[in-house]
Amino acid sequence: MKNSSLADLGEFGFISRIAASAQTGTGVITGIGDDAAVTALTPGMQLLTSTDMLLEDVHFRCCWHDPYRLGRKSLAASISDIAAMGGIPRWSLLSLAIPAGTPLEFLDEFTRGYLAMAGEHGVALIGGDTCSSKHGLAISVTILGEQKPYLILRRSGARPGDDIWVTGTLGDAAMGLKLLEDGFDSAHPTNQPGDCSLSGVGGPVSRLLDPAPRTAAGIALAESGLVSAMIDISDGILADFGHIAELSAVGGVIRLDHLPLSPQFHAAAASFSAFPYDLVLSGGEDYELCFTAPPDSREKINVIMKKCGVEAAPVGIVTSSPGVVIHDTAGKEFHLSHQGFNHFAS
Amino acid sequence: MKNSSLADLGEFGFISRIAASAQTGTGVITGIGDDAAVTALTPGMQLLTSTDMLLEDVHFRCCWHDPYRLGRKSLAASISDIAAMGGIPRWSLLSLAIPAGTPLEFLDEFTRGYLAMAGEHGVALIGGDTCSSKHGLAISVTILGEQKPYLILRRSGARPGDDIWVTGTLGDAAMGLKLLEDGFDSAHPTNQPGDCSLSGVGGPVSRLLDPAPRTAAGIALAESGLVSAMIDISDGILADFGHIAELSAVGGVIRLDHLPLSPQFHAAAASFSAFPYDLVLSGGEDYELCFTAPPDSREKINVIMKKCGVEAAPVGIVTSSPGVVIHDTAGKEFHLSHQGFNHFAS
Repeated sequence: MKNSSLADLGEFGFISRIAASAQTGTGVITGIGDDAAVTALTPGMQLLTSTDMLLEDVHFRCCWHDPYRLGRKSLAASISDIAAMGGIPRWSLLSLAIPAGTPLEFLDEFTRGYLAMAGEHGVALIGGDTCSSKHGLAISVTILGEQKPYLILRRSGARPGDDIWVTGTLGDAAMGLKLLEDGFDSAHPTNQPGDCSLSGVGGPVSRLLDPAPRTAAGIALAESGLVSAMIDISDGILADFGHIAELSAVGGVIRLDHLPLSPQFHAAAASFSAFPYDLVLSGGEDYELCFTAPPDSREKINVIMKKCGVEAAPVGIVTSSPGVVIHDTAGKEFHLSHQGFNHFAS
Repeated sequence: MKNSSLADLGEFGFISRIAASAQTGTGVITGIGDDAAVTALTPGMQLLTSTDMLLEDVHFRCCWHDPYRLGRKSLAASISDIAAMGGIPRWSLLSLAIPAGTPLEFLDEFTRGYLAMAGEHGVALIGGDTCSSKHGLAISVTILGEQKPYLILRRSGARPGDDIWVTGTLGDAAMGLKLLEDGFDSAHPTNQPGDCSLSGVGGPVSRLLDPAPRTAAGIALAESGLVSAMIDISDGILADFGHIAELSAVGGVIRLDHLPLSPQFHAAAASFSAFPYDLVLSGGEDYELCFTAPPDSREKINVIMKKCGVEAAPVGIVTSSPGVVIHDTAGKEFHLSHQGFNHFAS
């Protein structure tokens, strides 16, 4: 088995190999192996569906992303979308377009990472597609989740006066990307001058390469009934709270000094000529949650988040006037030179 | 609007443009525009899910596939998977990785084709993903459908003695591919010597470029309660009935002279040195249904198919001994030199 190649295995052999490792899960009636998977929703729940495409040299680079963590991250990004709705992730489909000559070991490690992330969040792999690619690895993941209709949290629903909250810390993944672009070696973090562990500047790199979706926090917030709107932060809080503001027909003021930053971010930022607020406000792939809730629920939310083992902080306030503005420590408006990533910028 | 480019529109502008054209559908609670789509299954039904990836120069060539028909076909292939389960297609998600410089008109035409196919089969577009591609257009489609648990048809379930049926005609799409590879101009069929319409050799080409999934026939067969197993023919009847045989732990004899061929297939085959049985048995992308049913249900099945306006023919018999064999007109075993397409063949 170890010495066989993808060409020897063939499409169906490769699918069988994945199917043999995939675990079943809640509501799975027929998994991998038929024209379509058959699943049963928990009675009374609605279906949540999201899909993401990840392309080599657009979303990831194989020189940075080892296959195991790439597998984990491919699913993590999708799970985060279900978390952002307050949903329970259940099932996923994985499509892989694979360049000729990709070692089977790479694919086995990718699958192992994907299924490890799946197992950690209660997700069953129920289907997918495999084909050959002429230009780099292409990955497409579809995630299915469920939740009671009245608990589902949307981008719409934020009300003027609500607090704007974020979980965890912001900007780490973007800082990690910057470090990698500047030559940090993700495969050998101990070889980096001045950095001997993932608690050093490897921390942001690890946040980029192996993000942790906020499933438990998302579900707990949904069940609390306290939250008026929620989104996951994948393009930076400025753009993503902007989606909440737009769909809720409100605006917001974000306090720069309230934004939660990790010690590792501060450590890495020390070498910048100016503090990299662009990474904090517009950096991609935080996969934290941004949500809004009335100010009188602050203590209850703190208790809920503590139970989930997740830090959360109010970072601003929803306003009735449209637009999202940032205030610095002096309460003066702060302007960002960089904006979020645009896939189609010319 | 007409003169703007994808770069001007940006990712969110492009998504809004698609969302504005997308129609809603049964069970859609929240469509495009949140972290995940929210849908409600019809009470008592189970969920059917399938996904397909289509890559430029692997699955399609932009010199053959005009964007409108490419959009149609991208969804048709997925709808066919739901039809193969006897399911009712409901919702879809579309991911597009788009090369820089792709004209907005191409994408508009693609979307128009996709949504036309969606409308014809009662499918709502509820989500997706868009990003830039460095190497050709990449398309990923996820389809969701539903059906009552006891009506869902699987690949398993075929019993020795059952008839093997196919809908429509076989090999046309593979013949179409052959014609295109040999220089047939799909954009200007009237310019072809000896072929002035799609009823000529353009018929097979049209079958390749614009397949029609058998949604109504699939549902009717499921509701009849007569069918023991079903699959759609995407890799040729030999491979696809082979899946039924394998999962039903049976075998089968397929009668070469019973396989339904179109007059256009015969016309095109006349120029071959030997009759192209490989296209009939192992050609891809027929998107017909192959199903099994007891011989005493033959008349009822003919009535059901006639109501759906679909031709169907028994082409062989399920056997208890494993393996799928082909018999020629004399009842002698026929051996095929070509096998189905293997994405990872070296």
